[in-house]
Amino acid sequence: MSEPLHFVVKTRLVEVVERLGEGAALPPERVLAKEFGVSRWTMRQAIHELIADGRLRARQGQGTFVATPKLVQPLALVSYTEALRAQGHTPGREVVAFDEIAADADLAEQLKIAEGEPVHRLERVLFADGQPIGLETTYLSVARFPTLRDVLEPAGSLYRCLTDQLGVQFGEGEELVETVIATPREAELLKATQSLPMLLLHRNSRDSAGDPIEVVRSLYRGDRVGFRATLRP
Amino acid sequence: MSEPLHFVVKTRLVEVVERLGEGAALPPERVLAKEFGVSRWTMRQAIHELIADGRLRARQGQGTFVATPKLVQPLALVSYTEALRAQGHTPGREVVAFDEIAADADLAEQLKIAEGEPVHRLERVLFADGQPIGLETTYLSVARFPTLRDVLEPAGSLYRCLTDQLGVQFGEGEELVETVIATPREAELLKATQSLPMLLLHRNSRDSAGDPIEVVRSLYRGDRVGFRATLRP
Repeated sequence: MSEPLHFVVKTRLVEVVERLGEGAALPPERVLAKEFGVSRWTMRQAIHELIADGRLRARQGQGTFVATPKLVQPLALVSYTEALRAQGHTPGREVVAFDEIAADADLAEQLKIAEGEPVHRLERVLFADGQPIGLETTYLSVARFPTLRDVLEPAGSLYRCLTDQLGVQFGEGEELVETVIATPREAELLKATQSLPMLLLHRNSRDSAGDPIEVVRSLYRGDRVGFRATLRP
Repeated sequence: MSEPLHFVVKTRLVEVVERLGEGAALPPERVLAKEFGVSRWTMRQAIHELIADGRLRARQGQGTFVATPKLVQPLALVSYTEALRAQGHTPGREVVAFDEIAADADLAEQLKIAEGEPVHRLERVLFADGQPIGLETTYLSVARFPTLRDVLEPAGSLYRCLTDQLGVQFGEGEELVETVIATPREAELLKATQSLPMLLLHRNSRDSAGDPIEVVRSLYRGDRVGFRATLRP
């Protein structure tokens, strides 16, 4: 099998990227295309794949730069804030929505409530060092957490609020990880191009008695984030 | 923000897909384009995204069909075969390579051997119900497992061979999950188009004494596979 030209270019471009080092600016596309003796279209494709792989990073109006390594987040029932701080990064959250919706059949089943019952919906963009990396939507039963809107600072740590202020004890949970294409709205909130692969996490957390605490849908930029799990036999 | 046309089409197409049901053939692109009153190019983009999302599936020369749900594999130190059988699917493996290589610095560090020391490399395509879903490359120290080539049936279960024939006791391991774009070779082995997002898993398993057993790099088709982790506080 002969390799497509843009892949040959991509492989050579990786060497350039490694030589330049983290944070360095990549020469303009037309300069690189000329240097490599390929069309700008081919060079653009190679650069695009290295952006999707998280090796390069495009900054609007500023050009393309060698990316820092992906952030690796633990797959565990810990606060996003704590996990990120433990790695020396500055976490941030921006509230998109904090409202009440009626549970549909699926949500009702997962939260063990009746269909149509009210559910808190908290949607936030997650930041690391000022860059948007994830979009997290958490659903909690209003009947179970009637005072949540009074005690939670919407941009603060939900886990700290649940444990410290509402006396919740986290037990086990389950997380499903898959890759998806973002919707236009999601891509816009994450300042990503639509063609960027995303990691989608569906989380169900239970308390120490086995009762549902939350259902979470989090979408992370695949070019910026990876997840680490501890495996047991 | 106004939504791009192909996304509006995609949303409407999901309704068609749900009405048709699993396994049904999707009407041809030109028929759908006419029905929706959009260009074939727009319809193709919408169909392509639904393929990447795992809702539709293209079969070469046969057209496009409504896909079955993604396979959900556990993130745990269990045999691929057992996990798939437990879900009612038929597992399969095809050996691409089973040879010896010299450890590079990175592999040597992970396997706790010296750089340049020999390492078994076992590369296999993983199948579910006859369809290729993953490409798994496992590295094991030759010094630690000198008889592996004599006792392992290359298309058989490596984990069963390690535990039953070589007396290995699995302890804990770590898995890193990220999303990447496949190389042309990988896409070809997985019969996938190159633009399909893939899930890449890096695994390090240790035995009950904490010594490294294997380093594994597995690439799974993002349109066919998801992973489930059990979370602990």
